[in-house]
Order: sequence, then structure tokens, then C-alpha cells
Amino acid sequence: MKRIAVLTSGGDAPGMNAAIRAVVRQAISEGMEVYGINEGYAGMVAGDIHELSARSVGDIISRGGTFLCSARYPEFAKLEGQLKGIEQLKKHGIEGVVVIGGDGSYHGAMRLTEHGFPAIGVPGTIDNDIVGTDFTIGFDTAVTTAMDAIDKIRDTSSSHRRTFVVEVMGRHAGDIALWAGIASGADVIVVPEEDFNINDVVDRIKAGYDKGKKHSIIVLAEGVMPAAQFAEELKAAGDTSDLRVTELGHIQRGGSPTARDRVLASRMGAHAVKLLKEGRGGLAVGIRNEQMVENPILGTAEEGALFSLTTDGKIVVNNPHKADLELADLNRNLSI
Amino acid sequence: MKRIAVLTSGGDAPGMNAAIRAVVRQAISEGMEVYGINEGYAGMVAGDIHELSARSVGDIISRGGTFLCSARYPEFAKLEGQLKGIEQLKKHGIEGVVVIGGDGSYHGAMRLTEHGFPAIGVPGTIDNDIVGTDFTIGFDTAVTTAMDAIDKIRDTSSSHRRTFVVEVMGRHAGDIALWAGIASGADVIVVPEEDFNINDVVDRIKAGYDKGKKHSIIVLAEGVMPAAQFAEELKAAGDTSDLRVTELGHIQRGGSPTARDRVLASRMGAHAVKLLKEGRGGLAVGIRNEQMVENPILGTAEEGALFSLTTDGKIVVNNPHKADLELADLNRNLSI
Amino acid sequence: MKRIAVLTSGGDAPGMNAAIRAVVRQAISEGMEVYGINEGYAGMVAGDIHELSARSVGDIISRGGTFLCSARYPEFAKLEGQLKGIEQLKKHGIEGVVVIGGDGSYHGAMRLTEHGFPAIGVPGTIDNDIVGTDFTIGFDTAVTTAMDAIDKIRDTSSSHRRTFVVEVMGRHAGDIALWAGIASGADVIVVPEEDFNINDVVDRIKAGYDKGKKHSIIVLAEGVMPAAQFAEELKAAGDTSDLRVTELGHIQRGGSPTARDRVLASRMGAHAVKLLKEGRGGLAVGIRNEQMVENPILGTAEEGALFSLTTDGKIVVNNPHKADLELADLNRNLSI
Amino acid sequence: MKRIAVLTSGGDAPGMNAAIRAVVRQAISEGMEVYGINEGYAGMVAGDIHELSARSVGDIISRGGTFLCSARYPEFAKLEGQLKGIEQLKKHGIEGVVVIGGDGSYHGAMRLTEHGFPAIGVPGTIDNDIVGTDFTIGFDTAVTTAMDAIDKIRDTSSSHRRTFVVEVMGRHAGDIALWAGIASGADVIVVPEEDFNINDVVDRIKAGYDKGKKHSIIVLAEGVMPAAQFAEELKAAGDTSDLRVTELGHIQRGGSPTARDRVLASRMGAHAVKLLKEGRGGLAVGIRNEQMVENPILGTAEEGALFSLTTDGKIVVNNPHKADLELADLNRNLSI
Repeated sequence: MKRIAVLTSGGDAPGMNAAIRAVVRQAISEGMEVYGINEGYAGMVAGDIHELSARSVGDIISRGGTFLCSARYPEFAKLEGQLKGIEQLKKHGIEGVVVIGGDGSYHGAMRLTEHGFPAIGVPGTIDNDIVGTDFTIGFDTAVTTAMDAIDKIRDTSSSHRRTFVVEVMGRHAGDIALWAGIASGADVIVVPEEDFNINDVVDRIKAGYDKGKKHSIIVLAEGVMPAAQFAEELKAAGDTSDLRVTELGHIQRGGSPTARDRVLASRMGAHAVKLLKEGRGGLAVGIRNEQMVENPILGTAEEGALFSLTTDGKIVVNNPHKADLELADLNRNLSI
Repeated sequence: MKRIAVLTSGGDAPGMNAAIRAVVRQAISEGMEVYGINEGYAGMVAGDIHELSARSVGDIISRGGTFLCSARYPEFAKLEGQLKGIEQLKKHGIEGVVVIGGDGSYHGAMRLTEHGFPAIGVPGTIDNDIVGTDFTIGFDTAVTTAMDAIDKIRDTSSSHRRTFVVEVMGRHAGDIALWAGIASGADVIVVPEEDFNINDVVDRIKAGYDKGKKHSIIVLAEGVMPAAQFAEELKAAGDTSDLRVTELGHIQRGGSPTARDRVLASRMGAHAVKLLKEGRGGLAVGIRNEQMVENPILGTAEEGALFSLTTDGKIVVNNPHKADLELADLNRNLSI
Repeated sequence: MKRIAVLTSGGDAPGMNAAIRAVVRQAISEGMEVYGINEGYAGMVAGDIHELSARSVGDIISRGGTFLCSARYPEFAKLEGQLKGIEQLKKHGIEGVVVIGGDGSYHGAMRLTEHGFPAIGVPGTIDNDIVGTDFTIGFDTAVTTAMDAIDKIRDTSSSHRRTFVVEVMGRHAGDIALWAGIASGADVIVVPEEDFNINDVVDRIKAGYDKGKKHSIIVLAEGVMPAAQFAEELKAAGDTSDLRVTELGHIQRGGSPTARDRVLASRMGAHAVKLLKEGRGGLAVGIRNEQMVENPILGTAEEGALFSLTTDGKIVVNNPHKADLELADLNRNLSI
Repeated sequence: MKRIAVLTSGGDAPGMNAAIRAVVRQAISEGMEVYGINEGYAGMVAGDIHELSARSVGDIISRGGTFLCSARYPEFAKLEGQLKGIEQLKKHGIEGVVVIGGDGSYHGAMRLTEHGFPAIGVPGTIDNDIVGTDFTIGFDTAVTTAMDAIDKIRDTSSSHRRTFVVEVMGRHAGDIALWAGIASGADVIVVPEEDFNINDVVDRIKAGYDKGKKHSIIVLAEGVMPAAQFAEELKAAGDTSDLRVTELGHIQRGGSPTARDRVLASRMGAHAVKLLKEGRGGLAVGIRNEQMVENPILGTAEEGALFSLTTDGKIVVNNPHKADLELADLNRNLSI
């Protein structure tokens, strides 16, 4: 390939800029031209596409967000949008595209693959819920932001012997809750992947104070229920501690990426370009065992493909991500 | 005086530990003994009082919260509690007390003063709403935490062209909102000290996007109204932007104090001790024009006293704190 | 005035970007046009001057350094350079200039003033050694960076019972050393403004360990002597502790500005523009008692001018900055 | 086992406290008693050993350093010291010990193993140079500290178009240099594992400025040569840029551990206890492919042992750590 493009799509994640920089510079190092597509698939369909130089990505490795901007664009689920997007790419002489984003973004990459247009997925989402990779770009930063916030909450809760329910992001995946919870020494971690018993939580809070703890911190993944509701359930189940609620919210999506996310994004962005350089498409980049790997985006479970399509066109996730529940066990032992 | 005590009371603030350390070490340097009172006025009344050594405050200057713990204790508003507290202090041979806290804490110090027991107030609250000082301990840290959070929100809002209403602390005072708003380049700052017109805000948001801004950030002091309600009012007034809400919450109370708060707390704690050493009580420490000052806690407005009592015993705040609205003007000019 | 310019000069300081942003946006808010001069006086003489829009300073408030770049340019000390610089300004229709920088930068502003060209100085230097202001832009950030570094060094020195000599910036002024030293709980602070006795320092280190301290940290301003030399002198004077040396170096010049520096820079930049708008020049902006003030750059000491010129043309600093040595006393009491 | 002990040894690393906490609490959760040994092997021999409760490790997960203190103790290389240490352990009824530290610490654990005393090694060192694990505790934090510092240096070097040689830790291993270099977008990374040509570096610096870069940053592992010497060699080889040198020094050993280091330390500490609980000793804990693993400390290379002993008693490192030089290639492509 001589000319490729890059876009970011879906919810933004810290490290997306570092990944774009890696795509741009690796491509130029390999002798290719590289274009940026603004606002994800919307910009692809609209033709909001412009060449990027090595200089245009200078000093962005440390910045949160994505300078290409991101957007949801449900229209790309329809054939018409897909064909128009490919037409725009071809009009600009673009032979392959790197898509940085989460689940929805991968669906778009899958459609491009279906139509034979070479696309490479790079997992960029704070939730860590993408199949085919141990870690996604942005996850380490989101965990760090959540941990820093909980460290602050611990200061104030210790001063007042308070119980806090801290809601972190994660609709389907408990990864942020588990990592941030362990890293901040949370007393209880509640995630979507694991049932919980509200009476056990009440007992655990009480036992902590009885043992001389100065605070009790419960880290709750948003996918379980809202923090306010959880607090209500605690009270209904008999909790009598001085109970507060905090929702970390969108700060988890921003911030300068951590070292680990910057290195991961750099490696993944460069690896995506190497695959395109070899003429390969329809693949999703991942990190497994600290090595760069790639999996088919579309295919059978046996082939290791991320998605399959049923005969009536439904998308099947072959090997859905699940948070590591050994971490939940670990925290039960360490939060005594 | 030969023996003094120190307590923290009310909502905790970063830098309280640094202030306690300064009280303890300055007292020892001056040849006095110093005792710590746990859990504020509650611990005073209960006699939860123990000697502190120079070593016992080692390595706490950098820690958020207060290792003496804090608590609200409405019983101290009653004569009985006050007398019992003084009795406990005398039983331990304590001749003067340093009270670190906000408004309510100062009321307690005023009562001690009324009864002739030497008390010195040190302003420790993130809200900056204490009279008699340009700055309170914890304010700079709270502003920093809010600014860091808004910087993160700006990353993600820029990536998605979103409008955010960010609610920061400040029930009566807009100081955190104004400082954090200016420091993070907010588009609009809404504070209790100043009326606002919701239509103007809608216009300003729209004008920003029209001028090419990639986001719109509104910093709202909690005293005005909850962020969710503000967002509703924006929508009702015609805002059509992609609107999100975030409430920073209790993270603003925690965290390692900033350099400025640590220096301020060190100076104020030491100054409080010097006053007690001279046998003076009934005073509140402050910083004015970068110098340590003190004002009577109770007296007339002419004497510069913080509080007066009416003939029927009501507390009058002589010169209530108001946030500097020049900062509001400044931000209107700089957020274009 | 209808058109003004802004430049940064001398060593860069965090918050310079925030000051530039304030100059640009305040000027536009006041109906003026504003130009940026690249690379300080060198760019002025070379005519490296271009218009700035409100958008061109978007999202720079949080960034360290100066996007206009800075440079030393000794040639501006000569008449020829000065006249050529003014000629370039006039060629671009520029009627006044805001100079952001330290001592050397102010000398340039003084020369412009001598030639009748309206210039306003804004104090931007990490050293806090500019007359006419309580604080300079960048000082709070440099103190914070130094404090954070010393906090880290304290962790490791505690683990190993080590003594560290930490060299911080400050050729003539001990401000960074004093503030960072107090904020990080240093055991000894050595500054150019105060004599020290090496034997006293050795005694103090030993006394600390005898009292049960787990580390000893000496904060040394670079103006006194290099850290390695200080360590040699300690050893020669009999120190037997496990002694290490660290030089913080240029990290103190960088980093995202603190909240305080961003607010200070915003206020000062806007104030400079207001003065030019009123047709006033030859002034240096400062903060005194938390209020914006201005002083003549050139004049007599009685007029409050920063500099006077002797009959043979030498520059006299009328009221040289001195660090507050009360902070040195404070630290001696608090580091027991 | 009923009673175990834990010590930290060698250079301290952020996350050691988190590992101690995990050992203590996992042990208590498993029904064992746990003792802390102060100051590493020195404390073991001296019998500076005391019981730890779950509360005694409260709120230390976020703190740098090691509250058990660490020390070098060459005497433990001798048989006499080893036997005395084991005697002390037995006197306290201790049946197994967890050793947290680097290379030297592992040699001590190997000697305990030789004498049949169950010891488990946990890799705690910022250098990442321990065999048998993908990552060591403290490495991610050290990389983060170095990256943050280089980010700051980048701000100031951009403002002045300067070249910086930044020396980071790593006597034998280039891991910190490579990770921090990639994460901060360094122009050149020089590590002990790879030869470099000084003329190539000069060319690369020049090419960067020619392409419009505003700075040039060289990250140098200390094991190659001191930064000042490298700068001399650059000048001798014809570099004419404005060249500065900075040595990051001991700040890299301190600081609150990152989320990743806290989780890693928690997992490793708990895993070490599980092995002892099963009666197993003579093993070193590691992370491979994100899973906890263990290797024999002493044995043959075929058994996967870390060390072998030659017939004349010399220690052979079976599979010495090498930094991943693919990262060096990656950076050459991304720093264009």
C-alpha cells in the first residue's frame, strides 16, 4: 500500500493521540502517505479527510482525547453509509484504514472488511472490554484516574469515619472497578461479572469498623446499578454508617495517558501499519503475553475471529471479554 | 503557657495535617507541651486527649485529611457541652487550644473565648469562606483538584464537541468555582454571589461553537443549584448542544496538599502557637497581604472582630466573606 | 491603541502561555488587534511577527513553556538593536508591547520605554526575583515541582536512613528553596540570603537521627554552591551519615502550570492590556496584597520605579528582591 | 506453615509497601501469623523482628518506599551470617520468609534455600532486571516518574530549541530508558544492550531541527556513561545545538506507586504467601503473560531455575534479563 488513513471512533480514550502519532510516523517511516479522517465514520462518509505529516503529530503523545475527534455515527450500520465511506476513501487514493476505538468502531471495521476494504482495528477504550487483547488503550489511564480519586476520598473518609460508594465506569466490564479497587485498597468491589449479596456488604462494612478501620470504601462498576441506588439498598439492608456517594464520571475518559498507555498505543499503532504495509486487512491488533498479535475481525470462532455473522446477519461476539475474577478473590483477602 | 492542645473540626481540608504538625513542633520549639484532641469538640468533651511528640507528626505534612480526625458535634452549641469541654482541658493541665476548622469550628472557639478559655482559630476549610483571611488552608488544593478534573473533562469534551456542566463545591462562596474556572479556561462560571441569566448562558455556548470552539465548559458552584437542574434549565432555554453533567464531589476534600497550602498551614499553625505563648487567646489567625495577622474572634465590628453577639445571643458575622467578582469579569473577557 | 504585540523573553516559566492567552483575549475583548512576536527580542528585530486570534491561544492555558518561544538576545542591549526592533513594530502598526519575562526582559522593556515606545512588563520567571511584585508567574509551579521531587526523595531516603542534599534553582534568590523546603518538611534549607555554618548543619543532621528521624534532607539553592561541593564540605566537617546528592535541574522550568500560576498569569496578562488600552506604557505589572498593581519601569526610587539609570548609563535596581527570611526561621522551628 | 516473615532488601522500589501489605493480609486470611523484619538481612541477623497485624499495614498501599526499611548487608554473603539469620527466624518460630527485593536480595534467598529454609523471592526493583518475570515491582512507577520529568523538560526545551541529554537509572538494563523514552517521545534512546554511533546521534539531532522539530531529547541509561560525558562526546562529534544535561537521579526510586505497580505488588505478595502456605520454598514469584508464576531460585537452567552454582561456588544467572530491543526499533520509527 502507498496511502493509508486513520480514524478514531466511539467514546474517546487517553492514548488515542499516541496511537494516531504511531500510525502516522510508522507509515511515513515505511514510505507510505497517511491521511487523517475527522470525527470517525461520519467524517469518512462526509469526506473530511486530510493528509498528516510527521510534524502534525508532534507533541501530542502526552495529550488526552483525540485531535481527530470522535463521534458516534449509527448510519454506518447501514449498507449505504458503508459504501459511501469506501467511495470517499478510494476517491482520496486510500488503500487501507486504521480504526482506533471500541466495540462499535470494530463493527464498522468489520463492515469494511466484508466489503473487501482493508481495515485494521486498534482497541482504544477505557473499559478494557475488547476481545482479542489483554489490554486496551486508555484502560491504564482510567484506572489511574479512578485510583487517584479514590485515594483522595480515602483521605476525607478517614478523617470522618465515613463509608463511600464510589461509582466507576464499566457498563458490562468490571475491569476498572477491580483494578482501581485493588490499587486503592477498597473494602468492597462490586462488578457486573459477579453476584453480590447486599447483606454481606453490610456485614463487611460493620466488621471493618469493628476491627478499627477508619473508613469503608466500596467501588461499584456503573453496570451493576447507580451508586445512589446501591446506597439506598445498603441502608435498607441495615447499614448504619455515615454513608456518602460519589460518581467519578467523565474525568475517567480524560487526562494525559500513563506511560503504559503511551507505550501500548505506540506499539499497537505501529503494528497496525506493518500489517497494512504487508497488504493485510480485516484484522484487530492486540497485546497478548506482552507481544503484539492480530486476530481476524470477521470469521469463525475456530479461526480466532472476534466476530461471526449468523445467517440472518446478526453479529456474534465469539469470545466475549470477562474481567478476571481472581482479582475479586484477591481483594477479599487483602481488604481485611 | 506550658501546655496547649490542638484539634480539627468540621469538614476536613487538605493541609490540616500540616497545620497540626506546625502547632506541635512550634510549641515544642517554644518549650511547651502539646496535646492532640481526637474528633474535634466531641473528643474534647469526651476527654479523648493525648500528648503529641515531634516524632508523632513526622511525614504527615504531605498527607490529606487530618490524623486527629474531625467530626461535627452540635452539642457543643450548648453551655453544658462547653463547660464539660473546658473541664476536660483543665483536667489535662491544658491552658490554651488551637482550633483548626471552618465556620462551625470558629463558633466553638468563640464559646471557649466567652468562657475565658484561650483559644486560637486557624482557618481550615476548602471553601475559602472564612472572614479575617485572604485564604484558608485547603482552598488551593481544592482548586487544584477541581482544575485537574476539568482539564480531564476538557480532553474528552473536545474530542466529542460536548458541553459539560461541572459542579464544584461551594455552598455560599464561589471561590472554588471562580479560581478553578479561570485556571481551566472555563467558558462560563456561575457562582452564588452573582445573578445569571440562563438565556445568556445558552447564547454564550452557541457563540463559542460558532466561533470554532470544540467544547463548552460551565463551572457551577453547588450553592447555585445542582448541576442536573442547571442542565435542565439550559435545555428548557433552548440549548441544543450535546450536554453532559458531572459533579466533582468529595474528591475536592482530599489529596496531598499543594505547596501553597502546606506553607500556609505551616505559617498559620506556628503563628497560632506564638499567640498562645504570649498568653493571648480569643483570636483568629489569617493571612493578609502575605503576612500573618490575627483578629478578635468575638467583639465589635470596629475592633475587627469576626463575630458579634446580639443582646439576645445571636451570632452576627461582622464582615462576611464574598468571592472576588473581578475574577468573574476577567473570565468573561478571557473565555471568548 | 488599536494594535499591540506580546513576546516572551529569557528563561521560560510555566504560565507564560496562560499570560499570552490573557493578553490576546483581553486585547480582542477590548477591541484591539494583537500580534505575537516569536523568540523574544530576536524575533522583534527580525520581524518574526504575526497576528494572533482568540482561537490561536485555545487550550494553551494548561501547557508549560511558551508557544511564542523565548531566547536570550544580548544584541538588544545595544542602541542599534533597539531602534531596529521599534522600527519593526511600527512597520506592523504596533503601538504597544507586552513583555513577559524576567530581569533581562525587563531591561529590554526599559530601553523601549527610554525610546518612548509603550511597553508593559509582566513578571514571568520561576525564581520570584523580580522587584515590584509579591509573586512571579511560574514560581508556584517550580516550587510544586521541587516539592514533588523532594517528596519522592523522602520516600527513598526514609527507607535507607539516608541524608540527601537536594539542589534547587535560584542563583540569587532563595525563594524556591525556602518554599519547597518548608512544603516538603526539609531538615535544613540553605539560601544565598543567609549565612550558614557547616558545623551547625552537621550537628543538625546528627541530632535528627539521634531523635529518631529516618532521613535528613537538605534543600540547597544553587546560588550558594553546587550540591556536590556542599556534600564534600559536610563530609569534611565530620558528617558520617549515608550521604547522597541530587540536582533537580531543568524539570523545575517545565510542567503544566499550577492553578495559582494560571490565575496569576491570567490576571497579569489582562491587566497589562488594560494599561496599554489607557495609553500607558513604561510600567511593570505586579501583584501586591492580592491586587494588581503597576510600577514605573524606569525612574527614581521615590517614584517606585524598578530601575534607575546613573549618569554614566548604568542600571540600578532600586529595591532588590530578597527572599523572606522569616520562612527560614519558621523551618528551623518546624524541622525538629 | 503457621508463622512466616517478610523483609525488604536492596534498593527500595515503589510498591514494596503494597507487597508487604499483601503478604501480611493474605497470610492472616490464610490463618497464619506474620512477622516483619526491619532493615532486610541485617535485621534478620540482629533479630529486629516483630509481629504485624492487618491494621499495621493500613493505608500504606499508596506510599512509596518500604516501612520495614531496607539496607545492603554484604555480611549475609558469608555462611556465618546466614546461619545466624536462620537461627533468629527459628527462635521466633518463623517457618518461611518472603524476600522482596532485587538481585542481591535474591542471592540471600538462594542461601536460605541452600540451607533448607523456605524462602520466596518477590521481585522489587525499579530496574526491571530480574529474571523469571516480565515486570518487577516499581518499574512502572520509575518509568512514570522519568516520563513526567521528560515531559517537563520537553516544555522548556521546546521554548528554547534546546537539546537535552536526560540520564535515567539502569546500570545494566535499558528498560527504564526505553519505556520512558517511547512514552515521552524521545528523539534518541541510548541503552547498554545496544551499540550506538555518536555520529549517528549528531546526525539525528541535526535532521530533527532541519525537519522543524523544536527540541531534541536524548534519553540515556546511566549504564552507558554519565550524561555529562555523553554531552562532551556529542560536542566532540560536531553537535552545535544548544546542549543541556540533566540527571534524574533518586526521584526515580520514590513516589506513590502507580496503579499497575500496586496491583502487581498485591498479586505477587499474595502469591508468595500461597506458596509458603503449601509448604513450598526456594521459589521466585513472577508475572508471565499476566499470570502469576514461580521458578526455582536455585537449580539447573533446564529446571527453569534463576541461578545455578558452579562446582567452585560461583553464582551463574541462567537466563539473564535483556531489555526488549524491539522497543528501540519502534522508537527509531516514531521519532522522525
